[in-house]
Order: sequence, then structure tokens, then C-alpha cells
Amino acid sequence: MIDTLATVLDWFGILVFATTGALVASRKQMDIVGFLMLGTATGVGGGTIRDVLLGLPVFWIAGPGYLIACVAVSAATFFLAHIPESRLALLLRFDAIGMALFAVTGADKTLAVGASPVVAVAMGVVTATFGGVIRDILGGESPVILSREIYATAALAGALVFVLLTWSGFSRDLGLVTGFLIAAATRLGALHWNWTLPRYRP
Amino acid sequence: MIDTLATVLDWFGILVFATTGALVASRKQMDIVGFLMLGTATGVGGGTIRDVLLGLPVFWIAGPGYLIACVAVSAATFFLAHIPESRLALLLRFDAIGMALFAVTGADKTLAVGASPVVAVAMGVVTATFGGVIRDILGGESPVILSREIYATAALAGALVFVLLTWSGFSRDLGLVTGFLIAAATRLGALHWNWTLPRYRP
Amino acid sequence: MIDTLATVLDWFGILVFATTGALVASRKQMDIVGFLMLGTATGVGGGTIRDVLLGLPVFWIAGPGYLIACVAVSAATFFLAHIPESRLALLLRFDAIGMALFAVTGADKTLAVGASPVVAVAMGVVTATFGGVIRDILGGESPVILSREIYATAALAGALVFVLLTWSGFSRDLGLVTGFLIAAATRLGALHWNWTLPRYRP
Repeated sequence: MIDTLATVLDWFGILVFATTGALVASRKQMDIVGFLMLGTATGVGGGTIRDVLLGLPVFWIAGPGYLIACVAVSAATFFLAHIPESRLALLLRFDAIGMALFAVTGADKTLAVGASPVVAVAMGVVTATFGGVIRDILGGESPVILSREIYATAALAGALVFVLLTWSGFSRDLGLVTGFLIAAATRLGALHWNWTLPRYRP
Repeated sequence: MIDTLATVLDWFGILVFATTGALVASRKQMDIVGFLMLGTATGVGGGTIRDVLLGLPVFWIAGPGYLIACVAVSAATFFLAHIPESRLALLLRFDAIGMALFAVTGADKTLAVGASPVVAVAMGVVTATFGGVIRDILGGESPVILSREIYATAALAGALVFVLLTWSGFSRDLGLVTGFLIAAATRLGALHWNWTLPRYRP
Repeated sequence: MIDTLATVLDWFGILVFATTGALVASRKQMDIVGFLMLGTATGVGGGTIRDVLLGLPVFWIAGPGYLIACVAVSAATFFLAHIPESRLALLLRFDAIGMALFAVTGADKTLAVGASPVVAVAMGVVTATFGGVIRDILGGESPVILSREIYATAALAGALVFVLLTWSGFSRDLGLVTGFLIAAATRLGALHWNWTLPRYRP
């Protein structure tokens, strides 16, 4: 049941990320092909880098489903961008769900190939954040990890908790759910209460 | 004969892309090593990303030919950049040929590893455009896919036509030639008549 | 003994590169997670791209050591950045050592998988410079290869000398040491005497 839920949330995360990519395209007033490229690259980017680094087959090569879904969402955003724009607060919260899910599933997939816990935490952060990094680089925006918001930190917290629980002998399911909740709560709390970490001061 | 032609055009595309990379280096007044790096990265970039995503051996690792050719063209541009500059209109048309070729051969190589038609179309676009994306990111220019020109759209049209024809049972040769002609004609028409697609308007 | 030395210098190079990444984070006044991400990506970036292009397992996936070391150095920089900052001249010289080492070991690893000498030289340059390229792109800085300083040139010189010596039948050890010294001397000389190569002039 956890795996069914993870699959549903995996698709959910990819589609939310694709929407955030298409919204950058709308901000840059691109044409529909620009929407498709930026939306799709953002949706599948983080998982693609994860698979390439782990030496696994890239997940969206095996079947057309992921690409079709990203293309459909990006095209819909071209015609209906006023909806996600007026719902930006909602979208940011959906994005938090996608990010939290990618953080734990990225770490889980890394443990499954036999890598060490530390590597799994790093890969969770990469999976959760690099779709956004690719979006910002292709879209000519300042990279997300430079922002003052708590984002990568939430992914790190979730991946760390998942890996620690698994490593301590708790079940994978408990780890996935707890890590996911920690990451989502951290990001949602940061959005709601404007949490930040102390910055480096010269 | 199609394969011989495709090989010739493949080299042609790589060398034209390398020249466009070296021309960005000339605009930034880089030294000769900068020309070599930017020219070579642009020439082989799109095909490199294609091969990494498909899990194939990267094409320029197998032999020195591609790198030597890119280095030679980039070095020549350092000494003779006034020639491609004064021939920019011509170069843009050569670039259209290279892009059109990469769109269909990228899709073709993807079908050859057994991936689905949708994935093949996406990979055709990636192969045709990501050399330019790498050039713009390394060169500190605004990414090409943000430009108002029809470029990725032409690659998409060519890859789509090639995949549709192949999928409908037409011969691979007919698909390659038709897709190539569609992509090249779309881009050349866009250059000549300043075609654009409608932009997103808020 | 050369291999022991190479291992020590390999770690040394990764840690110096991680420090330069963390120093960009300090310049951007990021929080500690930003330091960790930028430092680690810079430390392992060049070798990661080398391994992905060669189709080898990515070196830091196999064990946690490299990541832990990068994280530790990046975190230390968050609290102690005034030390590397006040020692910037020293750090640039350490960075030259790391770059020189990566240039020859990147080329060496490429020859070891049976690739041609030309490919090995290119991969030496990629290994030595792309950690810095990733640092600059993620950190929103102008890419290092656009700078007027001699950097990639030094990597190219070292990789070229190593490959030429090996190819001429000299021992691998002699090639590694000589190539390393050439690359380091070129970069250190450029830092000390402000050497530059002639720029392209329109």
C-alpha cells in the first residue's frame, strides 16, 4: 500500500514540478514549445540526474507515460496559466509535497542499489532539488538553492530522517512516511511562518 | 546511401555547431583555449546528453575523430572569426541543417534502442537543441530556448514527422529524409520570414 | 608510491575544491545547507562528469568518505570562512595543486578504460575544470572558463604532457609527475606573474 501511495505521489510530484517549470515559461512569455521544454525538464530533471548518477536506466526512457503527462500539464498551463498563478500559494504547497516525496524516494532508490546511508541522503536532496535547479538555469532565473527560503534544508531533513530510521532497524514504510512528513512539514512551516536559517555574515 | 549521407551530415552538423560555439567565444573575446572548450562542448554536447540518457557509450569517447575536428574548427575560428562573422546569415542556415539532422538522427538512435515513439521525439529535440543550451550556459548568454525565434519548434516538428512516418510503417529512409526536410524548412522559413509562434500573454 | 601520493593528492584536490565552493556560498551569504550543497557539488563535480562520460560507476557512490569530507569542509567554512578568505592567495595556490592533479588523473583514468590519447587529454581538462564550472553555474557567478586567467590552459598543458609522455613509451609514473608539475607550474606562474594568453580581437 505504501508503494501504491508512493507511485501516486511520485506522479503527483512530477506533475507539480512540471507546472512550476511551465510557470517560469509563462513569466518569460515563451511560446508553447518553450512551455513544453521547461515544464518537462523540470518535471523529470531531478529523477533523471539521480538515475544517471546511480547508473540506473533513466526512468522516463522505459515508457511514454511520464513525458506525455509532463507535456499535457505544460500545454494546459500555456492556456490556463492564470489558474496556477492565482493559486500560487496552493501550488507552492503542492510543490512542497512533491519535493518531500522525491527526497525520501530518491534516498530509498539509492539504498536499494546498495549505496551507503550518507550517499542516500545526498541523493535524496539531489532528486528533490535538481529539477528546480535545471528549471532555473534553463529559464535564466537565479538558481533556487541561492534563495533565502528553506527548501533544500527540508529535503535534507526528510532524507536524513528516512535514512536514520531505516538504518536503526525501523521498517522501510515507517521511514518513508516519517521522512516524507518531516520534509513536507519543514517546507510548509517555512512557507507559512517564513522560517529561515541563519545566513553567513562576513 | 542514406546512412552515408547521414554520416556526412552528422559531421557537418557537429562542425557547424562547434563554429557557433567558437563564435560565442569570439564575442566574449576569450583566448584560444576558451575557443576550444566552448566550440567542442557545443559541437558534441547534444549528442553527449542523448547518449548518457539512453545509457549508450558516449559517441566521441570511442575515437579521437570528433574531438580533433571540433578542436580544428574552433582553432580556425580563433584566427579567422571575421569570416564566419561576415557570413553569419550563411552560418545560421548551416546551423539549421545541423539542427534538422540531429533532430531525426537523435530520434532514430532512440528508436534503435527500443524506446517508445514519444521518448524518441523528446530525444530528437534534446539532441538538436542541448548543444546550444550548453554553449549559452558556459558562455554566459541567455539560453537559446528562451529566444523568441523558432528553433526547438523546428526540431520538434522534424522529429515528430520522422517518428510518425516510421510508426505508420513507412521506411526509415523516407522518414529520415522527410523529417530532416521538415525541420530544416521550418527553421529556414522562420529565419527568412521571421516566423514566430504566439507567446504567452498574461 | 605514486599511487599512494595520487590518492593523497586526490583527496587534497577534492577538499580544496569543496572549500572554493563554500567560499562562493559565503560571498552569496547563503545558509549552512547552501554551503554544504555548493561545497560538495564543487568538490565532486569534475570527477562525477568524468565518470558519467566514461560510463564508469560514479566514484563517490561507492562509499561515504568523499561526501563526508566535503560536508565537513563546507560546514567548517561556514563557521570559519574568515580564515580561507584571509588566506585567499594561499587557497588559490592549493586550488592550483588540485586542478593539476585532476588534469593528470582524469587523463590517466581515461587511458585506463582504453580510450584514445586525444580523448584522455579532453577528459583531463573536463575533470580539472568542470567542478569549478558547476560551482559558478549553481552560485550564479560568471563561468570560470570565461575568466581572463590561465586556468583551463594549465589543465590542458598538464594533461597533454602526461599523455604525450605515456604515448611515447615513458613510464606512467614519470608522466603523472611531469604532467602534474607542468599544470601546477603553469597555473602558479600565471597567478604570480599575471600571465595571460592573447585574447581574440575583432
